[in-house]
Amino acid sequence: MDSNTFPIQSVQIGDGQESIARGGRGLFLLVRQALEKTKVHNIVVLGWGSQGPAQGPNFRDTLAEIGSPARIRVGLRAKSDSIEKAKAAGMEVIEMFAGIREADLVICLINDAGQIGQYRDILAAMKSGSTLGFSHGFLAGYLESIGETVRSDINVIGVCPKGMGPSVRKLYLQGKNVGGAGINSSIAVEQDATGYTWDIALAWAIAIGSPTIFETTLGMEWRSDLTGERGILLGAVWGIVEAVFQHYLNNEINKEEAFRLTVESLTGPINTILSKSGMMGLYRSFDESDQQGFRGSYNRAYGPLRALIEEIYAEVDSGREIGHVIAATNRLQSSGQTMPEIDRTLMWTTGETVRSERDVSDYRVTPNLAGIYAAGIMAQVDVLRAHGHSWSEVVNESIIEAFASLIPFMHARGIAYMVDNCSITARLGTRVWGPRFEHAMRQQVLVPPKNGDVVPNHFVNFVGHTVHGALMDCMKYHSSVSIAVT
Amino acid sequence: MDSNTFPIQSVQIGDGQESIARGGRGLFLLVRQALEKTKVHNIVVLGWGSQGPAQGPNFRDTLAEIGSPARIRVGLRAKSDSIEKAKAAGMEVIEMFAGIREADLVICLINDAGQIGQYRDILAAMKSGSTLGFSHGFLAGYLESIGETVRSDINVIGVCPKGMGPSVRKLYLQGKNVGGAGINSSIAVEQDATGYTWDIALAWAIAIGSPTIFETTLGMEWRSDLTGERGILLGAVWGIVEAVFQHYLNNEINKEEAFRLTVESLTGPINTILSKSGMMGLYRSFDESDQQGFRGSYNRAYGPLRALIEEIYAEVDSGREIGHVIAATNRLQSSGQTMPEIDRTLMWTTGETVRSERDVSDYRVTPNLAGIYAAGIMAQVDVLRAHGHSWSEVVNESIIEAFASLIPFMHARGIAYMVDNCSITARLGTRVWGPRFEHAMRQQVLVPPKNGDVVPNHFVNFVGHTVHGALMDCMKYHSSVSIAVT
Repeated sequence: MDSNTFPIQSVQIGDGQESIARGGRGLFLLVRQALEKTKVHNIVVLGWGSQGPAQGPNFRDTLAEIGSPARIRVGLRAKSDSIEKAKAAGMEVIEMFAGIREADLVICLINDAGQIGQYRDILAAMKSGSTLGFSHGFLAGYLESIGETVRSDINVIGVCPKGMGPSVRKLYLQGKNVGGAGINSSIAVEQDATGYTWDIALAWAIAIGSPTIFETTLGMEWRSDLTGERGILLGAVWGIVEAVFQHYLNNEINKEEAFRLTVESLTGPINTILSKSGMMGLYRSFDESDQQGFRGSYNRAYGPLRALIEEIYAEVDSGREIGHVIAATNRLQSSGQTMPEIDRTLMWTTGETVRSERDVSDYRVTPNLAGIYAAGIMAQVDVLRAHGHSWSEVVNESIIEAFASLIPFMHARGIAYMVDNCSITARLGTRVWGPRFEHAMRQQVLVPPKNGDVVPNHFVNFVGHTVHGALMDCMKYHSSVSIAVT
Repeated sequence: MDSNTFPIQSVQIGDGQESIARGGRGLFLLVRQALEKTKVHNIVVLGWGSQGPAQGPNFRDTLAEIGSPARIRVGLRAKSDSIEKAKAAGMEVIEMFAGIREADLVICLINDAGQIGQYRDILAAMKSGSTLGFSHGFLAGYLESIGETVRSDINVIGVCPKGMGPSVRKLYLQGKNVGGAGINSSIAVEQDATGYTWDIALAWAIAIGSPTIFETTLGMEWRSDLTGERGILLGAVWGIVEAVFQHYLNNEINKEEAFRLTVESLTGPINTILSKSGMMGLYRSFDESDQQGFRGSYNRAYGPLRALIEEIYAEVDSGREIGHVIAATNRLQSSGQTMPEIDRTLMWTTGETVRSERDVSDYRVTPNLAGIYAAGIMAQVDVLRAHGHSWSEVVNESIIEAFASLIPFMHARGIAYMVDNCSITARLGTRVWGPRFEHAMRQQVLVPPKNGDVVPNHFVNFVGHTVHGALMDCMKYHSSVSIAVT
């Protein structure tokens, strides 16, 4: 990162140094200054999916608060169903390509597959010297897979919030009353045609409410983002609770109790402890006998979960996952079908009842489930580190995004409310990989040991792992306010 | 097909005409004639996986029986673990590349990912005018995906048995005593450098025991083969029984009875009825009330299963599935790990007990399961037909290969015995897609209806579907003898 407007710091995270910038409402006036300096007078937000309804209103509210003359509009197709929704959210709406032609900053939040279909037209409509911004590197990944580059007279940047759209909006609103609330972002400058391009990215990230901004590249971002959501953030956590719930049923525990021992335990107390004192704190919260249960589950689960997350990373990195998302999205659109529901099973209908009778004094902190979940987190941490991702990215995409942004949604209203408030890319990927995790649990983890089985001691790498310190380092920069989902 | 040696017929299958050749022991002497005419004196079989231990010994036995001077050897790397196994099966073994350099016909049965690593060396070692043969179009699919072609001075052919290796050997051996036993093949001539190349393919197919030979192309073969094994042949049938078994458990049916109502029902009476009188016969075997159950399950299952098989076809056709297999195989090799076991769960340990106490007079023909299975078959038939596959290929890859070659293995010894006797490509694909089918069943099919749900009447297309006639047409050419797996 390189800025004359915003203060950049080099800080220690884990065993490395990283560049970060602090955001927060105290720096809003610098946003005004940066937009003026970089001549960003006209901003258009393309799309109204998961991130659009968060970033559009956040940016608008910030501009209003600082009296910036910059104008922000939502660019939509003339017949888009979203026009009314964007207007209802108080946004000015403009026809998409008219908006792009006038814009100094195009914030492209169209769904990933839609970007593939439209990027040539979007690029062609942009002014020379303007800036194209993404909140996700999907298109960059696609262009990499086909060996194409972007015209060299525009800037290309990324501002990638570490949370789903609804969280980005909720915490921004909470931050109006309490300082320090917000979802952090990682940012990237992929192409700097005009100079001062970091200032544009920083202004955008701070304007939508990020308390801290980390540095990344779009290439690192799409790899970790797709892996993380298919892995422990959505796919793995879903598969784990499905399998453990069924395992309890098969062991004659009634369905309500099984739900309390799985989802309620995970989204309630386990998530709370994790968010306050990390994985070591979670482990240490158990007595000696339960720590043994935690270790045993951790050891059995780590290997199968790690193999699956390695496979996910390989599918993502190769471009095959991107190809799958594009094909699946096109298939849905041309057939007019919607994605299948994921919460019609006994587990989730039971969950509705259990949630409605929730009694926090009756929470169970299930050590076996905690050990499995920790193994999933650590497996993903180890895979991402092996592929060179920075500690801040690893920690955000494996731990903080879970407890701060996603799990609270499962806690409030179940699996579909968590998954289906995310991007189409995440929703599709969860439906592909969730069942794989569930199956690995059922076939490899939750089975009686057999003669000759050797359960490796993976736990030996848990205590003393650099990630515990890296998480605590990142927590210093984390939102002061927890999300409230109701 | 075009041959001066073997009789070719044009026959009606379904609503189309197809070229077929009849094989069988009565034509073995023509094999000798064809090998002499095409100057195939030296044959090398590369690899000793699933098909090698079947086709090698079958071809050798046929050559011996007809007193052919042609020599067949197994080509293996100098340090291969398979050398002893091939020798124990009575095969002559030669160092792989020495064998290729001398061979007039190279039968390449190395595992698919291995072919990708070695095809350049294999091609470079081949004599001009010799013939490269495959039992599966995987490499052709890979070359298509990277836009590469094969040197033009050699023939390229395919002889693709419609059954796993062990079945190809078992039925050949049974055929020594009973005329008409064997696994049919589809054959292809992709490149004809010398002329008479169909004769080489026909000789090979007949020599390994195929009673009937159908025409295809390698491009059609790998698409239908990968789709079929990921679909109803392995992945879907596995996913279906896992989900239905668990559904019974959740409805307080004991595990032994649940196993009888699922796997035993499917691999026993349902498979027997299917193999004798097809899907219409299966449907008509139920009384009116059970037919209603069949129809209800068929209607609920067809849509989700069809969507998944469409997705499989898209992944296969795009080359992404091929890329995944190569990456997964390389990952296994470099890590030294084996594929995870698939039969350690309660379902399959229960199955061992139930099989050991099997009482055929106590068989249940479960109408709901039959309806779901029929829906899976029909979904795959409809997908393959929509993509232009011939009726013989569709019927073989969706129905006959199941009841004649695969399901008998599950009946004898369970899921792993069926899946893990197949190719690495099939085994990997089953592990990817089986859990998807299981999950679709649990989340979309085996759930209580909700207000507003509309179950479409897919069954209206079942009665009167062309596939019923096509199946009966293909059955005329099918092995007279059923496989006996013990």
